[in-house]
Amino acid sequence: MATSNPPPLKDDLDIVIPTIRNLDFLEMWRPFFQPYHLIIVQDGDPSKTIKVPNGFDYDLYNRNDINKILGPKASCISFKDSACRCFGYMVSKKKYIFTIDDDCFVAKDPSGKDIDALSQHIRNLLHPATPYFFNTLYDPFSDGADFVRGYPFSLREGIPTAVSHGLWLNIPDYDAPTQLVKPRERNTRYVDAVMTIPKGTLFPMCGMNLAFDRNLIGPAMYFGLMGDGQPIGRYDDMWAGWCVKVICDHLGLGIKTGLPYIWHSKASNPFVNLKKEYKGIFWQEEIIPFFQAISLPKECTTVQLCYIELSKQVKDKLGKIDPYFVKLGDAMVTWIEAWDELNPKDSKKPNGK
Amino acid sequence: MATSNPPPLKDDLDIVIPTIRNLDFLEMWRPFFQPYHLIIVQDGDPSKTIKVPNGFDYDLYNRNDINKILGPKASCISFKDSACRCFGYMVSKKKYIFTIDDDCFVAKDPSGKDIDALSQHIRNLLHPATPYFFNTLYDPFSDGADFVRGYPFSLREGIPTAVSHGLWLNIPDYDAPTQLVKPRERNTRYVDAVMTIPKGTLFPMCGMNLAFDRNLIGPAMYFGLMGDGQPIGRYDDMWAGWCVKVICDHLGLGIKTGLPYIWHSKASNPFVNLKKEYKGIFWQEEIIPFFQAISLPKECTTVQLCYIELSKQVKDKLGKIDPYFVKLGDAMVTWIEAWDELNPKDSKKPNGK
Repeated sequence: MATSNPPPLKDDLDIVIPTIRNLDFLEMWRPFFQPYHLIIVQDGDPSKTIKVPNGFDYDLYNRNDINKILGPKASCISFKDSACRCFGYMVSKKKYIFTIDDDCFVAKDPSGKDIDALSQHIRNLLHPATPYFFNTLYDPFSDGADFVRGYPFSLREGIPTAVSHGLWLNIPDYDAPTQLVKPRERNTRYVDAVMTIPKGTLFPMCGMNLAFDRNLIGPAMYFGLMGDGQPIGRYDDMWAGWCVKVICDHLGLGIKTGLPYIWHSKASNPFVNLKKEYKGIFWQEEIIPFFQAISLPKECTTVQLCYIELSKQVKDKLGKIDPYFVKLGDAMVTWIEAWDELNPKDSKKPNGK
Repeated sequence: MATSNPPPLKDDLDIVIPTIRNLDFLEMWRPFFQPYHLIIVQDGDPSKTIKVPNGFDYDLYNRNDINKILGPKASCISFKDSACRCFGYMVSKKKYIFTIDDDCFVAKDPSGKDIDALSQHIRNLLHPATPYFFNTLYDPFSDGADFVRGYPFSLREGIPTAVSHGLWLNIPDYDAPTQLVKPRERNTRYVDAVMTIPKGTLFPMCGMNLAFDRNLIGPAMYFGLMGDGQPIGRYDDMWAGWCVKVICDHLGLGIKTGLPYIWHSKASNPFVNLKKEYKGIFWQEEIIPFFQAISLPKECTTVQLCYIELSKQVKDKLGKIDPYFVKLGDAMVTWIEAWDELNPKDSKKPNGK
């Protein structure tokens, strides 16, 4: 399909970073990030100060700020966990969000050139998605590609893309058991593809290198209750991914995965991860079938309505697994209330358009 | 996941070629194909002789042979169309089939090395498929890859792979309208990935570079009625792909697409193609929703039973589009009868195992 370079989106995009422990991080990304506004959501002790190098335009929110802005509704934002980043999605006023972890650096493509991850995400978001039929040559909207023989013509217009899920070279995003079993595995395979995840198929959404259209799907990008005081960790992005996928499928929005790659520099500690994950490893065996079977009524015409309906089903059906899911279901409602409070104009627009 | 090189399958695989117009074709593939038995199904005038270079072990079937072997049931095999290749699937006695067009040559990987397409297909078929959840790092069974964080552990065993769909560098497999609009487009993108097509998702299966497990799915690999005396062409592999996908989904079998690439040397004439395709371009707009909505009863426990059920639904629901589909539905039954006649032991084994 004919494509063009994505237009500059400097005024339409915020970069949300959960916290910055590594001062090299922003320096390395400076050529790519400096034109944009950064929202840094500090996940730990608010008395500690994050030093941001000169030249960046940013807002920094610590726990005190979150409490002040949301009041009692701050209970829905995780503490001492990178899941707190979703507060940044809520306070942003931009159309697009790019979120990245501070141990993710600029990767190189096979020709040795630095990969401008942001530009590829923007491109993914600006081109349509095609979840209703599989295209064997991958993204039909990339340069030199198209729909192959046998692809129905009525489906070639595609649908709006809500999410662009990027990947990781070097340290792959493995769970603790796999990390323990394969401590030396590195991802060196550069797969030059972007694809739409088909309708009806769930995927493990990783929050390390992720962009989305806030207007289309923002209110569903809730990273749940993780970290301090919670029985589980490292399922924040997974939770968001399951919710986002079923809502996108329901509302006719697309999700892409593949390019761009970032360089994931450091494996987190597998022993710490196992402790955070182990309940999730059991629970997901029941959560996945729940999300696979979910059906949202057609009255749910906005992301908010879908999400409130989802929260009810979570409490009703997953509450049996553990009381945690009742608390999570309540937090999902609080999240939407807080979102609508901070984004009063959003809530009345069907599909957030 | 830990993987090993695929074992040699010399006695378990036949290579099926619809016809050979190009003498260079077998010479180029000699290092890869010579160890295997070839089944050549001549699509045109039986009085013309196809010259096969020395050193190849092959059987050649022309129309007279097909008529002799199948008697009146030969009516289900297309004439003057490469769809006749499916006769080769039927007369083979091997577990695996690889089928390739005579304008497809050995491609090179990005390092410049000749790609052994057959070996990659065998590898794809010997490793499990994972259609129930999407793995963002593609084939979890390829070297240096695995299931990512959040992939349910209960789904990691996977299911048997029935089909391996390979791709094409140089001339992409486009329909006539796309060929006409983009006469100079070439596929130069080497995507280093194999993936399972998710359950519930249809795909355009191309017969140019295709391998499958005959025991698992053979009786559904019928390439329909095309060519001489038929109102349509170039939908033979598409038809097989739609049928195969819904039957695989029903029986718990997987389909992979991606590697290996072959070098597709020559674009077929877009004007001729348009003539063959144009009814299909309309019809597929109704055929795709038909296949997307299909439900096979649980009594259909073998490929044959699924296929007969499918033939009934085709006549019943697609017969309204055009009388061609009633004829096709009848031919589907004849195909199964002929298959069972030539493969008497197959028909009683559930899932062909």
